[in-house]
Amino acid sequence: MSYNGRNINAGVPVSANLQLENESQLAALYLSVRNQTLALCAPLEVEDYQVQPMADASPPKWHLAHVTWFFETFLLKPFSNNYRIFDPSFERLFNSYYNGVGKPFSRANRGFLSRPTLARVLEYRHYVDEKMLELIQTSMIDEISFRIQLGLNHEQQHQELILTDIKYNLGNNPLRPMYVDQKADDSLEFNARWVEFDGGLVESGTDAGQEFVFDNEMPRHQVFLQPFRLSTNLVSNGEFVEFIEDGGYERPELWLSDGWAGLQAQQDQRWSMPLYWRKQGDNYFEYRLTGEQLADPNRPVCHVSAYEADAYARWKGCRLPTEHEWEHAAVDAPVEGNFVDSKLFHPSGQSGEGMQSQFGNVWEWTQSGYGAYPSFKPFDGQLGEYNGKFMANQLVLRGGSCASPRSHIRPTYRNFFYPPDRWQFSGIRLAQDLISKERL
Amino acid sequence: MSYNGRNINAGVPVSANLQLENESQLAALYLSVRNQTLALCAPLEVEDYQVQPMADASPPKWHLAHVTWFFETFLLKPFSNNYRIFDPSFERLFNSYYNGVGKPFSRANRGFLSRPTLARVLEYRHYVDEKMLELIQTSMIDEISFRIQLGLNHEQQHQELILTDIKYNLGNNPLRPMYVDQKADDSLEFNARWVEFDGGLVESGTDAGQEFVFDNEMPRHQVFLQPFRLSTNLVSNGEFVEFIEDGGYERPELWLSDGWAGLQAQQDQRWSMPLYWRKQGDNYFEYRLTGEQLADPNRPVCHVSAYEADAYARWKGCRLPTEHEWEHAAVDAPVEGNFVDSKLFHPSGQSGEGMQSQFGNVWEWTQSGYGAYPSFKPFDGQLGEYNGKFMANQLVLRGGSCASPRSHIRPTYRNFFYPPDRWQFSGIRLAQDLISKERL
Amino acid sequence: MSYNGRNINAGVPVSANLQLENESQLAALYLSVRNQTLALCAPLEVEDYQVQPMADASPPKWHLAHVTWFFETFLLKPFSNNYRIFDPSFERLFNSYYNGVGKPFSRANRGFLSRPTLARVLEYRHYVDEKMLELIQTSMIDEISFRIQLGLNHEQQHQELILTDIKYNLGNNPLRPMYVDQKADDSLEFNARWVEFDGGLVESGTDAGQEFVFDNEMPRHQVFLQPFRLSTNLVSNGEFVEFIEDGGYERPELWLSDGWAGLQAQQDQRWSMPLYWRKQGDNYFEYRLTGEQLADPNRPVCHVSAYEADAYARWKGCRLPTEHEWEHAAVDAPVEGNFVDSKLFHPSGQSGEGMQSQFGNVWEWTQSGYGAYPSFKPFDGQLGEYNGKFMANQLVLRGGSCASPRSHIRPTYRNFFYPPDRWQFSGIRLAQDLISKERL
Amino acid sequence: MSYNGRNINAGVPVSANLQLENESQLAALYLSVRNQTLALCAPLEVEDYQVQPMADASPPKWHLAHVTWFFETFLLKPFSNNYRIFDPSFERLFNSYYNGVGKPFSRANRGFLSRPTLARVLEYRHYVDEKMLELIQTSMIDEISFRIQLGLNHEQQHQELILTDIKYNLGNNPLRPMYVDQKADDSLEFNARWVEFDGGLVESGTDAGQEFVFDNEMPRHQVFLQPFRLSTNLVSNGEFVEFIEDGGYERPELWLSDGWAGLQAQQDQRWSMPLYWRKQGDNYFEYRLTGEQLADPNRPVCHVSAYEADAYARWKGCRLPTEHEWEHAAVDAPVEGNFVDSKLFHPSGQSGEGMQSQFGNVWEWTQSGYGAYPSFKPFDGQLGEYNGKFMANQLVLRGGSCASPRSHIRPTYRNFFYPPDRWQFSGIRLAQDLISKERL
Repeated sequence: MSYNGRNINAGVPVSANLQLENESQLAALYLSVRNQTLALCAPLEVEDYQVQPMADASPPKWHLAHVTWFFETFLLKPFSNNYRIFDPSFERLFNSYYNGVGKPFSRANRGFLSRPTLARVLEYRHYVDEKMLELIQTSMIDEISFRIQLGLNHEQQHQELILTDIKYNLGNNPLRPMYVDQKADDSLEFNARWVEFDGGLVESGTDAGQEFVFDNEMPRHQVFLQPFRLSTNLVSNGEFVEFIEDGGYERPELWLSDGWAGLQAQQDQRWSMPLYWRKQGDNYFEYRLTGEQLADPNRPVCHVSAYEADAYARWKGCRLPTEHEWEHAAVDAPVEGNFVDSKLFHPSGQSGEGMQSQFGNVWEWTQSGYGAYPSFKPFDGQLGEYNGKFMANQLVLRGGSCASPRSHIRPTYRNFFYPPDRWQFSGIRLAQDLISKERL
Repeated sequence: MSYNGRNINAGVPVSANLQLENESQLAALYLSVRNQTLALCAPLEVEDYQVQPMADASPPKWHLAHVTWFFETFLLKPFSNNYRIFDPSFERLFNSYYNGVGKPFSRANRGFLSRPTLARVLEYRHYVDEKMLELIQTSMIDEISFRIQLGLNHEQQHQELILTDIKYNLGNNPLRPMYVDQKADDSLEFNARWVEFDGGLVESGTDAGQEFVFDNEMPRHQVFLQPFRLSTNLVSNGEFVEFIEDGGYERPELWLSDGWAGLQAQQDQRWSMPLYWRKQGDNYFEYRLTGEQLADPNRPVCHVSAYEADAYARWKGCRLPTEHEWEHAAVDAPVEGNFVDSKLFHPSGQSGEGMQSQFGNVWEWTQSGYGAYPSFKPFDGQLGEYNGKFMANQLVLRGGSCASPRSHIRPTYRNFFYPPDRWQFSGIRLAQDLISKERL
Repeated sequence: MSYNGRNINAGVPVSANLQLENESQLAALYLSVRNQTLALCAPLEVEDYQVQPMADASPPKWHLAHVTWFFETFLLKPFSNNYRIFDPSFERLFNSYYNGVGKPFSRANRGFLSRPTLARVLEYRHYVDEKMLELIQTSMIDEISFRIQLGLNHEQQHQELILTDIKYNLGNNPLRPMYVDQKADDSLEFNARWVEFDGGLVESGTDAGQEFVFDNEMPRHQVFLQPFRLSTNLVSNGEFVEFIEDGGYERPELWLSDGWAGLQAQQDQRWSMPLYWRKQGDNYFEYRLTGEQLADPNRPVCHVSAYEADAYARWKGCRLPTEHEWEHAAVDAPVEGNFVDSKLFHPSGQSGEGMQSQFGNVWEWTQSGYGAYPSFKPFDGQLGEYNGKFMANQLVLRGGSCASPRSHIRPTYRNFFYPPDRWQFSGIRLAQDLISKERL
Repeated sequence: MSYNGRNINAGVPVSANLQLENESQLAALYLSVRNQTLALCAPLEVEDYQVQPMADASPPKWHLAHVTWFFETFLLKPFSNNYRIFDPSFERLFNSYYNGVGKPFSRANRGFLSRPTLARVLEYRHYVDEKMLELIQTSMIDEISFRIQLGLNHEQQHQELILTDIKYNLGNNPLRPMYVDQKADDSLEFNARWVEFDGGLVESGTDAGQEFVFDNEMPRHQVFLQPFRLSTNLVSNGEFVEFIEDGGYERPELWLSDGWAGLQAQQDQRWSMPLYWRKQGDNYFEYRLTGEQLADPNRPVCHVSAYEADAYARWKGCRLPTEHEWEHAAVDAPVEGNFVDSKLFHPSGQSGEGMQSQFGNVWEWTQSGYGAYPSFKPFDGQLGEYNGKFMANQLVLRGGSCASPRSHIRPTYRNFFYPPDRWQFSGIRLAQDLISKERL
């Protein structure tokens, strides 16, 4: 069993994205992804599972139930003979946004559902897992196989959200509790350079093939790129501190208008540094899932919004890359880097010669609005709501983060968030036009 | 040991309000009230302790910690030798509104504190209880005795809030889980009449004496009452349904201007019946802490705002009583009725001849703005923030409810909430002017 | 023609409140009040008539139309034969809050009505005036006479609102334009003392008689007062500056809880001094309708909310008076003082020996919630919405201001606003308990 | 003097965009554009100039002053010798969003500025015009010439805004007053077909040349287009009614997620038809600047948001075009159509064979996020805030509308608004992929 030429080891997340040869491979994959979700929750207290500290950061308990609901709704109900629904009320409670399935329970109120309890949700998972394994053994048709892979990729997305959401909860708790108590990896010397790209007519996106891909990555199509260059490295904490100390958060000329207006409208806690940062004396501290530490100047800056990323780039005389530039630079590189599989739960330093990995560490903001590729076609039926209906007002991020499963990420993978969002592990890679056309 | 001539039985809440003769009585009282809080929480799941379904309805875990913080802050820190603070961060986390102690943690965010866990909060309670019992044994000066009684009365207030807040949580959960699973008491025939009072120059409030009273009940002072009459009974569900079906919620002429404006501003769920009610076909159901049932026409209506109470009264050609009328009518009656001690957790029916008890069942809205009695003097020091600073924008409610400990209530007891509040067990007693002066 | 023993001079507002002997007196009174409204608007530009700088501060054009609507709706439509409505759309546009007449146009959007134009509104006034004078000549029945007096008193209330609302508009305009350009009256030495009152069983309110009174002032009834004292003078600017400089706006222990919460929630312009004040260097300036000037330390402080008034009083070891205390002290004094008739449009200094006038200058906040007197009965029919439905959440203010017509004010007159309101000419008179009962 | 081969007639707006040969041409152009602004305001009442019915719709008086401020700030202050500022307070009052010039007056409060009066603003215009004409005669350097053309193009943009903003004011007034009273042009038969385009590597945007263009249109660059087709006609009212009556506003599967969420959050007036439409019985009426009329089924639908446009397209099995597709189809066509020059002030019908004009009538929503072209370079200095800082969260619209001056529009012209905006004259042109790639 292989995926992209890499062996899958026990103890690290396996791919939800492999070329499946038989039922037992699929069953093993299913169990592996499902168990990985529980493994990520192992350090949590019952209370941690319950809390929704902002509308975007759902309770871990809700995530556990919702990903299970996905299998029940899109696999067991339509395809499993004589399937008995676990609890009819769950259809609405754990529907995220599929209007085709019914009116979802209010998103902002998920944290108010003290019932069903965590124990009951774990029963739900167990029940659905048993039925899913039966289904896998009995009816391995293509539609089911595709949906199971979709369900597993969906669960991997929620694995990352569990980490970002629990970080928002714990990182805003005055006690600053750790998610896990472990020593950080060593810092590395920081050393950024430019790499140049000729551009021209290139291909972007992918077509359906043997491996699972999302509808929003398709189809493969041509785009024309002007010559550009990318930084070999992500912007570091140390560089970002220079921006802060040069008055970056106080200078409207550096900011997009909506970003600056957002700053002015913030009441108590006007942004003056990345999320989870705190200044004490002359020092900047950052909360990590492993506890609060000095913001290491050599590590990539993280938890910045697109507005901050754009303002930083403008301050540097640079810009954010487009998603097509990013993909063109990344498309032939191995998908290696600091993913959740490393269990560091925080960006690590970058070193060495040449272009550093564009994968892992932090999601990289692009300047590209999240939209449809030419001839985009959503998944069929209710699953068409998965990606397409979000194609407005959001920006594309690329590359995966230290909270993403490695097997979940591809060069063509498109993540998307709103410009002000900063609770994801999101950072900055700089770009520049290689030949700047002067106006006559 | 006696209180108001009644024996205190094991198994029911004891009075926090007794005339204390020695240290062991006080210690017994302390333990009894503290244990009663835990007893009320016994049916809860860990998740239930965590949830704050609206800003007003704090998590039970927070209540458990806050009442403990009260003893630590106002007794142990100032009076206990060598007291070691349990956790310095709790000073802010569990401060409700005492600015004199420091800036409290944001009220609306209490539900986000997944840490400290419930287990840790129970440790906190245990630790403080041990230190409090030591304090009680060693330094029984008046100031301490007074503060302990205040702390116990404070805890009784939070016992009631735990019930109202958990009801708001469970009663808004689509699963409608029960707090306890038990059969309701029998319904009784409803039969209301008027009782007349001459008014004149009467006394209201009380002076400090051997029994504990709050500062806002003092001093005893004269007020002049016009002749009036009060209904022997609380308004019943059956009567309130008549108001609903006569278009009561659709007729602006029945409503105070602010109440009507509030109705118009409600988005999703415009009030059309009391809180926790639901109409299905021609039937009205109400959620009780013992589960959802038909709204019994013979029981007192409950969970209405002052605006609804006032509109109902106007529809009936009546008005709400003033707090002084209410107290004048109640002052000599025994404090008996359906309190939390009955463990019914819901208003029970009223029957028999004569004036029904004004105590228990539901808090009775008055038309009196919550303000200072003449020569009102707040408690000294930081405890002066207990009652006085709330003397604006709220109305007085009287009599205690089925969620109040019986020993906590007195004829002079003044509760206060904002006119739109309805998550307390609040109901309606009608009044009328006995001699209506006609305008010339 | 006399009113309260005072002669009415040409050139000053005549009373809307007199004992009318015949039709021509009523016609003269009608024209006098109506013309006074226009006289107050004379200094305005067309643009000034249009602006609604906050929901509470309606455009002068709207005021002009609304008071006319009042006569059309409550006099001409029901009582005038063959009355032809001026414009059917005005019924809704200029209805303030009479739900009995129909759904009013959205209050907050009055400033968006660029049409009808001012010219058209003045036509409307002229048309209604003609028809009203005809009505007065032809059918002088009691009901009409009462309603005309009500309409004129209503118009006087809006005369005051025109001034307070135009002040809010001009006073918040960065150009700080004057309403009228005139020199202020001379300052006077400030000298406050206490006057003591025995209290006891006193009478409050009034009964219907020959003179017009509002329903909320009736009926006359007994109240019992504890001994108290009142300051002879209103709190001065100079005294209030001491409060500011002693950190009055920064000390939560001085504030009612709702007031302090309001301060914390203010974003851009957290209150730190009265409305219309500005600090420059060490000097405090105040915007007056006659332009910006140094805040004269000897004049009464003005444009403070009830929260600021209460905080100031607490800082001084005093309290605000109740409305009954205020009325008891004022009831036998002549209604003399700095009213709009003086055309100063700003509080003037107070001097001399003895109790200073409680009338004019500024509305005096009381601690009394605005509610019904015992046996209160609203006006009949649609006019019952005039006062009664506002009896929640507001506080009573007494005495009239420099923007009130003198003839409009009585010792029993009850004005009412919400505690945070400060755009009225509202100030502070201190009270104290004469004998402070000590707790035992 | 020629512009794009067309003669400029007296009585219609002249181009702000011409190749200028000498000072007197520039002076004539300056006066022509400036006077056209006043001509558009001629039908307004003084009150209409004052009103800001929503934050986006500034008062015409403010527009008149702001465009004048632009000349004063960016021409007279830096380039005119001995220029005396008209009024120093105007620097802040009439600054729209140039943080480089200073902190602008609050945008949402522009309607509160009753002063300066309209008369004073007209004086301001007159004063600046005199000084500008002097400047034009004395120092015709390139930088000034460019800035004057920018100022005139800027004023043309505000000419359109004056019309859209006054429409929002009058169209929401219950009196539904007309801007001008004139008969509509005749309706034409509606007949839409598809036109196909091969796509491939095409050019988009423009470079600086002799004619004025905005920075956001530059530079000219290559883009690759897949084969596509465009409708010859804009979507008509009649077609849009079919969407409405097929439940278009009630079916979440047709809507982008943010659009649907917006619908759910609307309180009073949930969108159920385009802005300015009203349903009475079975008929749909639309408010036009010439008064309310039946929504003509053969005219283009107008005043729809991008969400409605996108939902309509999805309902039809189509999509919105990208801005590059739109430009590719339009680039060689003459800029002819129903512009403000026709003085119809409303979209007119489309007829005839072949591709209908893409210019005039309504701004056509594209699916393209408004962003920087490759190697985009903002204008220098403070003028760099003109376009670039808005490159987030907005969508590009193309083609100009019946409220745009013809001379202002080019095939490369990019307008931009937020997806929910509908007060502009915005409509829908459908696109489709010509060869739909099927997923394997």
